[in-house]
Amino acid sequence: MTKNAPLGVFDSGLGGLTVVRALRAALPHEDIVYLGDTARVPYGTKGPATVTRYALACASHLVARGVKAIVIACNTVSAVAPALLRVELDLPVLEVIEPGARAAAEATKSFKVGVLATAGTIASGAYPRAVASFSTRIETYGQAAPLLVPLAEEGWTEGEVPRLAARKYLEPLARAGVDVIVLGCTHYPLLFPVIEAEAKAMLGSGVTIIDSARAVARDVAAFLASRDLAADPARGAGSIRLLVTDVPKTFDDTASRFLGSAATGAEQVDL
Amino acid sequence: MTKNAPLGVFDSGLGGLTVVRALRAALPHEDIVYLGDTARVPYGTKGPATVTRYALACASHLVARGVKAIVIACNTVSAVAPALLRVELDLPVLEVIEPGARAAAEATKSFKVGVLATAGTIASGAYPRAVASFSTRIETYGQAAPLLVPLAEEGWTEGEVPRLAARKYLEPLARAGVDVIVLGCTHYPLLFPVIEAEAKAMLGSGVTIIDSARAVARDVAAFLASRDLAADPARGAGSIRLLVTDVPKTFDDTASRFLGSAATGAEQVDL
Repeated sequence: MTKNAPLGVFDSGLGGLTVVRALRAALPHEDIVYLGDTARVPYGTKGPATVTRYALACASHLVARGVKAIVIACNTVSAVAPALLRVELDLPVLEVIEPGARAAAEATKSFKVGVLATAGTIASGAYPRAVASFSTRIETYGQAAPLLVPLAEEGWTEGEVPRLAARKYLEPLARAGVDVIVLGCTHYPLLFPVIEAEAKAMLGSGVTIIDSARAVARDVAAFLASRDLAADPARGAGSIRLLVTDVPKTFDDTASRFLGSAATGAEQVDL
Repeated sequence: MTKNAPLGVFDSGLGGLTVVRALRAALPHEDIVYLGDTARVPYGTKGPATVTRYALACASHLVARGVKAIVIACNTVSAVAPALLRVELDLPVLEVIEPGARAAAEATKSFKVGVLATAGTIASGAYPRAVASFSTRIETYGQAAPLLVPLAEEGWTEGEVPRLAARKYLEPLARAGVDVIVLGCTHYPLLFPVIEAEAKAMLGSGVTIIDSARAVARDVAAFLASRDLAADPARGAGSIRLLVTDVPKTFDDTASRFLGSAATGAEQVDL
């Protein structure tokens, strides 16, 4: 595998572009190919067998484009498919749940960790399992936060509405006495400032908010370094290539919001 | 077909229970069998061929249970499948878009009608087409309102957050000068009071809000009367039977919220 081959990143939709943004910040020299399965979004309401089948199709497409590693930027896929992808594909597969869970396990002093995620991710129990794999002493409190995805997608990330929504979802976590909160959905980094501000007001300034996109980027950087797979810095800034299975009407706006910079020229692919 | 046979109602999920609630109010003697395809919700993100296939499976299941007519309580299905269902099934099929569009066409004096609905329903153009079928003079302004579904599902129907969300989505309709607003999603009747209050504040007290669930119920009542298919009043209050393809964990709470009375004992069926 060549060091200068691109990283492959996929998600059910465009939310995973927050992971691309974090990867870009942590690994400025890497080329990144992102595949959003926008024709079949959301995965969260589909069964494990279907999600695994879709994930394999996405990952195989990226492998065919010569990526050196796969980053699953989707909580639903991360909960069910990594083991199978690792067996089926002959290259490294990183996912989005374990890094956030480990960062939370390392940060908590009260041994109580909160997770904000979609109803599907909370119901899957993936975060409590992942946190328990690092320390069985830690109790994990999950809170489904259904309003946060549409707020992020609409770019409604400031003001009274996101503030009150964050407050509503943080209340049960505050009552439970957590001192670390994992943002367990790729959409939530857009709401990081408002969630952090409310969490500090409600749980005290010592609370730690784990942005799982940034946690994944740190893990990917460490992994590439350890395998001597990081791109050569001499080649300058890496490129970002966007692939989608359907071009939503509002693609440019929505994708740019998640990516944090202009996202245009997505290429449509069939899986 | 016997007059005392039940009405069959289906939707992709539980939101269609607002139609059952409106049918119960308008037609207290009718037995109602409701089928929510909760295993495959949402339909809004799926293609027309898939939606039609699912709709046919739902409707066929209800036909096998001896219903006298089918009410499609789902905007996505209503936009693509009624014609095919009417051909395939040998019984009356009523849907949810036309009654609201006709009520709006009858009520508007400015010849400008607004529609609040999901992004999928707005993108489908079903409402502008339906309104234009009643009067080509009328301009229809669609506004996607992504936050209203999670607000309704969580029961967050009072206070600052739903008020500000309603205001945000009503603003473009107010600028367009509409005097009628159709609530084009089965979830929105739960937010009727807050939407109506904000609309009156922003567009004047003369604005008319059309609850499409109630518009459908009026149409169903008129249809049954015209065909002499209404249930015999002497048999007393009708029953409501709930079928689902998957039992969500929060079924009782969510279903009761949409139905407006206790919803328990849903039966799980395979389609």
